[in-house]
Amino acid sequence: MKNEASRNTTRERILEHGLRLVSRVGLSGVTLGLLAEQSGLSKSGLFAHFKSKEQVQIDLLRYSADFFQNNVIQPALGFPEGLPRLEALVDRWLGWPKKAGILGGCPIAAAMFELDDIDGPVREEVLSLEQELRTLLIDLVKECIRCGHFRPDLDTDQFVWELQGIYLVHHTSLRFLRDPRADSFAEKALQSLLSRAKQSGKRKI
Amino acid sequence: MKNEASRNTTRERILEHGLRLVSRVGLSGVTLGLLAEQSGLSKSGLFAHFKSKEQVQIDLLRYSADFFQNNVIQPALGFPEGLPRLEALVDRWLGWPKKAGILGGCPIAAAMFELDDIDGPVREEVLSLEQELRTLLIDLVKECIRCGHFRPDLDTDQFVWELQGIYLVHHTSLRFLRDPRADSFAEKALQSLLSRAKQSGKRKI
Repeated sequence: MKNEASRNTTRERILEHGLRLVSRVGLSGVTLGLLAEQSGLSKSGLFAHFKSKEQVQIDLLRYSADFFQNNVIQPALGFPEGLPRLEALVDRWLGWPKKAGILGGCPIAAAMFELDDIDGPVREEVLSLEQELRTLLIDLVKECIRCGHFRPDLDTDQFVWELQGIYLVHHTSLRFLRDPRADSFAEKALQSLLSRAKQSGKRKI
Repeated sequence: MKNEASRNTTRERILEHGLRLVSRVGLSGVTLGLLAEQSGLSKSGLFAHFKSKEQVQIDLLRYSADFFQNNVIQPALGFPEGLPRLEALVDRWLGWPKKAGILGGCPIAAAMFELDDIDGPVREEVLSLEQELRTLLIDLVKECIRCGHFRPDLDTDQFVWELQGIYLVHHTSLRFLRDPRADSFAEKALQSLLSRAKQSGKRKI
């Protein structure tokens, strides 16, 4: 039992180092040697916890998703339904790694560009995590419609698609271009998107 | 002279194979071994043309940019100034690799997620290419204002920022998610962006 607990602690520590690493160098940059070094383990010590590089990548993606769940989604779900909840989520989502104490970028966003042509279980994992987030966003937008905060004929898929565009360009703007206007661009784009979702049919918000 | 010409042809052939490779596996995936193999050269044969992996990456980015210039920008610049030219450019830009016969994704977009934390000359090259495109887009939008196609108080930086969001999410939607609705989402988002740029002040288009 004690061994099992210590094994889990070591595994957790590796994944924590791994998340910080993958956020800076991307999935393909996380070599087993580099991860072992960062976690203070030997390569064979690392192999006791993961069967392959592919397994490390999948576990890192899941760990990132859990971290995202705890730092972005859960706190937002505490807000009142409809627009307040959606806005709370978007506010935590944009630039989330820095807000959650991670120095690099979003591992899932980077993986969507890294793995678009590389089929296999790692791509499948990213696909499933991305679909999970998209489903949540669509549910939150539908909730806004039910609460009367958005117009009933809003195209929810289109809304979420455009929201994801704001997320991605905010990411490149903030992290790649290091443009100090990134947050202000995002805020204006978001306000415009929200206002179009409220418009027409003389909505009573 | 003959040697120099044949040297240039080989170099061109390597870069052409390299572009197809980088569009599928990303900059860090283009190892010298893989590139030599794809170009039908030995690793030492490849080294006769490039000094380092970093030089290969920079040359590949420039070659991609030239390819983009010839396949996307130049044909669009033949259209009448203002909105027709901007629309022609955006039409060729979205999903440009496939339209230009490249099977993978956009190397510059992928590099913006790959290199956000990796400082050095390769990142500088991506930054400079991205800024060049952004400057061109801003110029085209200003031309739309001068032609009376867009309202004079339009925030051109904001417009181009949102346009880049459409480009990025269309890229993940088309290439990563392989969503058949990618083009239709982009078309709707684009029409909305254009219509907001035309609106207000009772524009005479």
